[in-house]
Amino acid sequence: MISLQLNAWFDFSYRDFDAVRESMHSAISLNKAEVLDVVLDDFSEGYFSLSFENRRKLLITLAQVYDLNRAQVRDLIKQYLGLELPGGNASESSTVDEEAMLSCFYRVERNLRQVLKPAYEVLFERLNNRPGGLKFLSIFRADVLSILAEENIASLRALDSYLKEKLNTWLSPAALELHQITWDDPASLLEKIVAYEAVHPISNLLDLKRRLGVGRRCFGYLHPAIRGEPLIFIEVALLRNVAQTIQEVLWDTPPIPESEATCALFYSISSTQPGLAGINLGKFLIKRVIKLVKREMPHISTFATISPIPGYMQWLLSKLASQSILAEVENMSPSSSSGSVSTFRENILEPEEEKLLLSCSEESFPGKSGMDVMLKLLTSTKFEWISSPELLSALKPPLMRLCARYLLEEKKRGKALDSVANFHLQNGAMIERINWMADRSEKGLRQSGGIMVNYIYRVERIDECAHSYFSTGHIHASNDIRRYTLGV
Amino acid sequence: MISLQLNAWFDFSYRDFDAVRESMHSAISLNKAEVLDVVLDDFSEGYFSLSFENRRKLLITLAQVYDLNRAQVRDLIKQYLGLELPGGNASESSTVDEEAMLSCFYRVERNLRQVLKPAYEVLFERLNNRPGGLKFLSIFRADVLSILAEENIASLRALDSYLKEKLNTWLSPAALELHQITWDDPASLLEKIVAYEAVHPISNLLDLKRRLGVGRRCFGYLHPAIRGEPLIFIEVALLRNVAQTIQEVLWDTPPIPESEATCALFYSISSTQPGLAGINLGKFLIKRVIKLVKREMPHISTFATISPIPGYMQWLLSKLASQSILAEVENMSPSSSSGSVSTFRENILEPEEEKLLLSCSEESFPGKSGMDVMLKLLTSTKFEWISSPELLSALKPPLMRLCARYLLEEKKRGKALDSVANFHLQNGAMIERINWMADRSEKGLRQSGGIMVNYIYRVERIDECAHSYFSTGHIHASNDIRRYTLGV
Repeated sequence: MISLQLNAWFDFSYRDFDAVRESMHSAISLNKAEVLDVVLDDFSEGYFSLSFENRRKLLITLAQVYDLNRAQVRDLIKQYLGLELPGGNASESSTVDEEAMLSCFYRVERNLRQVLKPAYEVLFERLNNRPGGLKFLSIFRADVLSILAEENIASLRALDSYLKEKLNTWLSPAALELHQITWDDPASLLEKIVAYEAVHPISNLLDLKRRLGVGRRCFGYLHPAIRGEPLIFIEVALLRNVAQTIQEVLWDTPPIPESEATCALFYSISSTQPGLAGINLGKFLIKRVIKLVKREMPHISTFATISPIPGYMQWLLSKLASQSILAEVENMSPSSSSGSVSTFRENILEPEEEKLLLSCSEESFPGKSGMDVMLKLLTSTKFEWISSPELLSALKPPLMRLCARYLLEEKKRGKALDSVANFHLQNGAMIERINWMADRSEKGLRQSGGIMVNYIYRVERIDECAHSYFSTGHIHASNDIRRYTLGV
Repeated sequence: MISLQLNAWFDFSYRDFDAVRESMHSAISLNKAEVLDVVLDDFSEGYFSLSFENRRKLLITLAQVYDLNRAQVRDLIKQYLGLELPGGNASESSTVDEEAMLSCFYRVERNLRQVLKPAYEVLFERLNNRPGGLKFLSIFRADVLSILAEENIASLRALDSYLKEKLNTWLSPAALELHQITWDDPASLLEKIVAYEAVHPISNLLDLKRRLGVGRRCFGYLHPAIRGEPLIFIEVALLRNVAQTIQEVLWDTPPIPESEATCALFYSISSTQPGLAGINLGKFLIKRVIKLVKREMPHISTFATISPIPGYMQWLLSKLASQSILAEVENMSPSSSSGSVSTFRENILEPEEEKLLLSCSEESFPGKSGMDVMLKLLTSTKFEWISSPELLSALKPPLMRLCARYLLEEKKRGKALDSVANFHLQNGAMIERINWMADRSEKGLRQSGGIMVNYIYRVERIDECAHSYFSTGHIHASNDIRRYTLGV
């Protein structure tokens, strides 16, 4: 078994970099017969023992030194260009001859595919074939990603895209097992839930027990090669109605008996492997959970979420900042430069919103324009606005309206700009409702001004919604939320 | 779910070939968004509904029409040849420049890898991602293999080797789960055991119950994407000593209480998926079973097999046939052609063996030479020799001696010629003993003249044996069996 102590390098002195590099070389270059388990063990243990800086050095070495053999590629390519395609003019030739001529193509093409594999592919394959190897590769890629977040190294980026493709084919959704996580599960699995819950942190074991107790469910996808920890998990609350705030969900004692519930509310989805970023593990998860819940509790007819809007504030603040500057420029020289500026200029506030904002913030947050005031209010780290009824009521209309616009209209490459929205829409959800002051935690205020959104999964329309979102980017939404963007 | 009725084509009228071809085309060529589950379902159901002849037509179409795009390959290859390698003379250039220049290589190489994938790869990937898809692909490849057994079609062979590589990477040993099969398992799983037991057929449910009952164990490898049937399974009997005949193992009531057993005897290993031929699923299986048995029953110290020798008679008969002809030629013209003939000529019988054979078979099976007699005796479909004490005692010495030679010395590409021998040696076994009249069934007589072999797994030497067999082809064997081949 590969030792998987993430923190092993705290426990003992750093292994010598050169020794680990040497064991990596053995793991790649020895032939199949000689690569005993011990060689791969040695490498993975050695890797964990390295400091982050040495891991960085090792990964770059791997990407640059164990790349593909370009001389071999050139040789084969020249062979390939020398082959003559059958058919064409010589239409007389029999199919048998054609097949024989094609054999040469098949052979050279197979060889080409082979030499186009970087040398490090062998390391990935060998690790993947071993117990614990897939988990190791996931940690390995998490390291690669954190290096790439700091600096763009072309060879390392090529390695990452290669490894990602490999992981994608190894993690077939058909091999993922849906498992209901309960208080009867091993503590080693439950501690992972506590550690990885990303949306609404679990404070202690009692809190965890509640999340798995009456009125709630928790499901995870397990992969047979990564034992004892779900790759992704989802938490469900059983309610009478679709909750409007996260507080309604994070109760200590269940508000209703399970038998009276008509709504299953997905209130948290967390993935546990940063190294599997970009691999869609959530595919089918929600569909399969819905099927399971329906079978166990036929009285449940509504499947919805209460979800964060993680990108809203970031989008809004950059919009406000750029627009206030453009507005200022325009005001300074109203006649001369208005032509060029106005192309990008957009008043994202309605006249009444602007007026209200300026009037109620005169003393505490004076500003040149509504947008300027709004920017100052929202970036104030103390969130003074949520304790002032006037500010709250002045901010609510523009924040809600612009939130609807952000969710329904802001896109990147034809898909919803917001990552959580994109996840649910891909899975076949519709946008149902946005809720004011639904998450008053600091994180909630910082990410989305405290607004949360309900997505709804209409069982009979899941496939249709997913399909039209996929192919045309069309976002299904309720009339209620559409009304915001029509200015009604 | 893909419908997996293997026999579905008996149930309803053949689907139109063109309709299935059309659905195959959709499954390949539609973009990701448009390939709904229904398209893949439609294709796989359609495929099952085809007659074998139409499947053949479809598979050849797939191999030839959905091959790779050679024009695209040529274009990219020319682009690639136009790229200039960094480094070399311009040693002044900074690493940053080199990295930037390499980016072009990475890009074109990634594209090359992409276009070198045949169009049918998309079909394989899409099927593999679906529940039931891996099972479908295994049936699919079984069909490909049975076509290739009849005729060698280059394009279909290329498809097979591509699919095999894919299956190999999807079926990582780390994802296989070792499962003890008991009478408490679902009937749907148990019926698979009855259907696939290849070594010692199970006659009925009572027989199966005995195979899973006191004194026996059964273990299988399950893959999460092929639910409810093991890919390979192994049967174990608990004994006092290593059995010399299969009859000792196929008892109706256990000969000893389990607590008195000191030997775990592997008496049958069967794989259930003809479509996974050539993919080593047995890897680690025996090692993991040994570990499990040791933990449950520490009083067991010997791990051995009683195994068939499936290739022995085939090898021996062809040897006998060719050598009797050579002997005849030599006898006809002893002086002139002896030079050229004797190069290949080998008297595979010892003088005493020859004498004994000729003397005791004079009346019933007269022949020109000992080899000729032996050939006649062994190819007689009624196996008269096993009911004659004289013939038995004349045949035993050469059959046992040559069997040892076959197992220890006959190789193909450096590995044991016998497939079962190769399997166990790869897994780290040693050849311990060969047993006369160990399997008197018709199959046993036909395959190996009734001889069976015991392989032994010495727990502390498994890795070492596997390693030296892998790297040098060295076969570990007991002194007892070596003695046969030394003529002692």
